[in-house]
Amino acid sequence: MTVMGIDLGGTSTRSLLVDTTGRPLGRGQAGGANLRSAVGGVAAAARAVAEAASQAVESADGRRPEMIVVGASGAGAARHDEVAAAMSEALAPICPRIRVENDLATAFRSVSTSPDGYLLLSGTGAVAARFAGGAVAARADGLGWILGDVGSGLWIGWQGLRAAAAHLDGRGPSTVLSERLVRALEVEAVTGDPAQDLVRRVDDLVPARMAALAPLVLDAARADAVSLDEVSAGICREAASGLVTSLRAVTEEGPGAVVLAGGVLAHDTIVRELVTAELDGWPVLTASDPVLGAVRIAREAIS
Amino acid sequence: MTVMGIDLGGTSTRSLLVDTTGRPLGRGQAGGANLRSAVGGVAAAARAVAEAASQAVESADGRRPEMIVVGASGAGAARHDEVAAAMSEALAPICPRIRVENDLATAFRSVSTSPDGYLLLSGTGAVAARFAGGAVAARADGLGWILGDVGSGLWIGWQGLRAAAAHLDGRGPSTVLSERLVRALEVEAVTGDPAQDLVRRVDDLVPARMAALAPLVLDAARADAVSLDEVSAGICREAASGLVTSLRAVTEEGPGAVVLAGGVLAHDTIVRELVTAELDGWPVLTASDPVLGAVRIAREAIS
Repeated sequence: MTVMGIDLGGTSTRSLLVDTTGRPLGRGQAGGANLRSAVGGVAAAARAVAEAASQAVESADGRRPEMIVVGASGAGAARHDEVAAAMSEALAPICPRIRVENDLATAFRSVSTSPDGYLLLSGTGAVAARFAGGAVAARADGLGWILGDVGSGLWIGWQGLRAAAAHLDGRGPSTVLSERLVRALEVEAVTGDPAQDLVRRVDDLVPARMAALAPLVLDAARADAVSLDEVSAGICREAASGLVTSLRAVTEEGPGAVVLAGGVLAHDTIVRELVTAELDGWPVLTASDPVLGAVRIAREAIS
Repeated sequence: MTVMGIDLGGTSTRSLLVDTTGRPLGRGQAGGANLRSAVGGVAAAARAVAEAASQAVESADGRRPEMIVVGASGAGAARHDEVAAAMSEALAPICPRIRVENDLATAFRSVSTSPDGYLLLSGTGAVAARFAGGAVAARADGLGWILGDVGSGLWIGWQGLRAAAAHLDGRGPSTVLSERLVRALEVEAVTGDPAQDLVRRVDDLVPARMAALAPLVLDAARADAVSLDEVSAGICREAASGLVTSLRAVTEEGPGAVVLAGGVLAHDTIVRELVTAELDGWPVLTASDPVLGAVRIAREAIS
């Protein structure tokens, strides 16, 4: 018996076919798709998933799975049924039994052997979730950068930009960020006023691009032999505090295992350090490949 | 001898012709124009200014001014020469002597009889400026909502939305804002999750529209017979503190007269109260019609 897990992402779609012991039998990869796209989102996603699934079957000498679990951002609540129907239709030639999960579940189950516990994610966005029986029982934040995503990579990069601007026009304390962010963004000196030059550059920036600046803030906040930037350290403390607040908002009956996910928390950053210190006594796991989460959910479903 | 002042705004352009004693002789009005518009901005602005000027001359039985001062947002530094050339050409048939000022100067001089002092403005945006000899000698903030505009109407409305979202998904303290903003925005219950419903609504909101929500936050922060919303009060304290920080960043040699301008500071709001309390001992003035500032600058220039 075999099962397949598929991770549908914005930049790529990956599939993995395994036997019931978890041994890999075949893999596939296709382009990314965004279920939230107004035009063609779901249809494009279904095509990408079908292609990745076919490749995995082919690379496993034609062995077909008993079940396929597809993990996808934007597959939660509001549009679940529509997405599930489209996936079932696209995957029908390969497998009759399809389940669609949101990407929080596949991140959580990528490493958690238990279907109960917590996920705290900080990537481009930020969200906390409590899982019960494998399903999201409660979530906090994940509201996007305008209203929330406190402590996300985008939020950290953005607060770094605001702190740099405040330094440049004399409202805020000195920070190495002003020089480093201006260099990273290749800000041109045009207006004679460095703060206004930064404004002009940021006007052209897609908001999600601010997340790419987070590593500069995270690095400047880490005490090393040379220096520690107090402004960056303050941003990272506030990020960690916001993430812990989100986690506490979904906490029920005290500590449980927490899966840390996303670039800010799954890597060795100062924010991860601060969050884990705050969660003293909670078992902490680090998220792995979401395809493994999809596979785990599929294996449990058929066992 | 007569002079004319013109205020070029986004929604309308108004002109006022006065004699040397300041007595009104004629007025005009035309459509608004935005100098920052990529297409036709300056040309459309020049047409609007010329129309408003012609009307004022006509309503004064054909009396032409010795000088015209045009105040316009976006007429500062970077594009001043281009804008001044376009205005001079458009107004040449009416008057040979034209000066273009940015809207900070016309707001400041709308009430300040001295050409030296400070302006602290909080409308849709927020900026502090020091004036010396009628010109902007230093400015702080005014960087737009992504990087700054701390304490502006947009900032206040936006922080109100963030606080409402935090309350709705359990991360933040209870606030009357969640109910009042949801009502004001006519948020529809669609997803079963009030925070997500708010996100959907705000996704459709032009950022500048967040400024329209500021009055709800300002009102909820004002202690009255019924109640005081502590979350709103905290936002307003932070707004006032940010505005005072901007003002201090441009302050030289201690206190001076401060002109308070923009909807948040020119009206009787809690933020104005907090700012003036902080500026204890500084003479405080309230900005009047910017057309009067343009007229004052013109009268001084010809005297």
